[in-house]
Amino acid sequence: MSNLSDLNIIKIGGNVIDDPAKLETFLEKFAALPGKKILVHGGGKIATRIASDLGLEAKMVDGRRITDAEMLKVVTMVYAGLTNKSVVANLQKYGCDAIGLSGADGNAIKAVKRPVREIDYGFAGDILADSVNGHAIRRFLESGFTPVFSAITHNGSGQLLNTNADTIASALAVGLASSYNVSLLYCFEKDGVLLDVNDNTSVIEVIKKADFTSLKEKHIVHEGMIPKLQNAFDAINKGVRSVFIGNADNLHLYQQQKFGTRLTD
Amino acid sequence: MSNLSDLNIIKIGGNVIDDPAKLETFLEKFAALPGKKILVHGGGKIATRIASDLGLEAKMVDGRRITDAEMLKVVTMVYAGLTNKSVVANLQKYGCDAIGLSGADGNAIKAVKRPVREIDYGFAGDILADSVNGHAIRRFLESGFTPVFSAITHNGSGQLLNTNADTIASALAVGLASSYNVSLLYCFEKDGVLLDVNDNTSVIEVIKKADFTSLKEKHIVHEGMIPKLQNAFDAINKGVRSVFIGNADNLHLYQQQKFGTRLTD
Repeated sequence: MSNLSDLNIIKIGGNVIDDPAKLETFLEKFAALPGKKILVHGGGKIATRIASDLGLEAKMVDGRRITDAEMLKVVTMVYAGLTNKSVVANLQKYGCDAIGLSGADGNAIKAVKRPVREIDYGFAGDILADSVNGHAIRRFLESGFTPVFSAITHNGSGQLLNTNADTIASALAVGLASSYNVSLLYCFEKDGVLLDVNDNTSVIEVIKKADFTSLKEKHIVHEGMIPKLQNAFDAINKGVRSVFIGNADNLHLYQQQKFGTRLTD
Repeated sequence: MSNLSDLNIIKIGGNVIDDPAKLETFLEKFAALPGKKILVHGGGKIATRIASDLGLEAKMVDGRRITDAEMLKVVTMVYAGLTNKSVVANLQKYGCDAIGLSGADGNAIKAVKRPVREIDYGFAGDILADSVNGHAIRRFLESGFTPVFSAITHNGSGQLLNTNADTIASALAVGLASSYNVSLLYCFEKDGVLLDVNDNTSVIEVIKKADFTSLKEKHIVHEGMIPKLQNAFDAINKGVRSVFIGNADNLHLYQQQKFGTRLTD
């Protein structure tokens, strides 16, 4: 048993952000979760809608946004401004002492502009190893604040960068794994990793690293889950204690150890 | 002499925010200023332009913005998102460990929605006495961070509020006056309080409280300066050590005690 204190890092995506009632319920449950915690939120559809209202066309390649200079302004406004501050104000309402952060704030997370190969993703940020400023984030956590990260980082030279929220959550988890017993919770639209993708009651409770290889080989888990699980086990290999994959609506079940699928060593 | 350490609170407005070259130069000088400091920035014209691009009409009464629900989204996006994070990323570039905050973050500044009398200002926030959370802001300052406040606050019940940046700066100064030797610097387009409003070299170096009454009676200072000076002396009456009024371009002269006009007890 380690002497480190527990830290839960929870990532929510568009299916929560875009649904005001679902978001409100989630934030109340998140606020009620005891102990040290960090929230990471993705963007949702608001940025795309506002970009469109401003006459900008959303350019996507393989599901990834191309972030030109104008689109960077929009995602910075929406993710780090509108969404982040609304989430923080609502958490404060529920008694959670949240502070909204981008990677630039406190130099918390640095990234590099994605190198141009076949595709120029524009101002998209890739997080390198050791880019998480554990010292700064520990200062927030140890002061009693709950950091709420939007999916915007910086390169340290004044450039903001649009960065995948899943990647931010996992980089934070790995970067803080030497200071805390980190559990990483990915919220998505299903109740967990399903044995039968069409049956939301077929949640697999625990997947151990050794099981994963066998599940892959036997094609038991759905193809689309493989990269998510791979990323989760990568984080576990780098010191994260557990990764959970489940439904934001069920966050209140986490303390009863009944939240989604637990991935572990 | 008090044993409190010094704290400089500097407010910049639209004339700096709207001019990228001027802003860049200012941020470099701000970053170079030693000791504890807080930056407060107003909005500038970007919010009005983006609102207009989104088909919203800016409604002003007596120079004050009417903030309906849609306009609140725009100012939250622009002030707390685009402007705040750009400023923070640029300060980080110059080695200043900035964190961007709204009043919701860390529950730093609460406000109340302005009561509707003749005019309904919408989601405009008024800061009441004791609305500054000195405990939270001290935690940021003592951790070595430089807070950068946008002109957005909250009411503690989940509602964000558009709030005058001059008022935020002065509320912070008064709220922190028992913990620090606070100097409050208002940057505007002139080099200081002028004896002759058409002569930028006619800066009055020091105005003491007793002088102010006489300057008012003799109509020596320009009519438009009276409310600014009145607010400054109100802050001084509430424990702020000095208030300076000067030009952002001259911030580098502050350490040589040559910045603008100094108002003092």
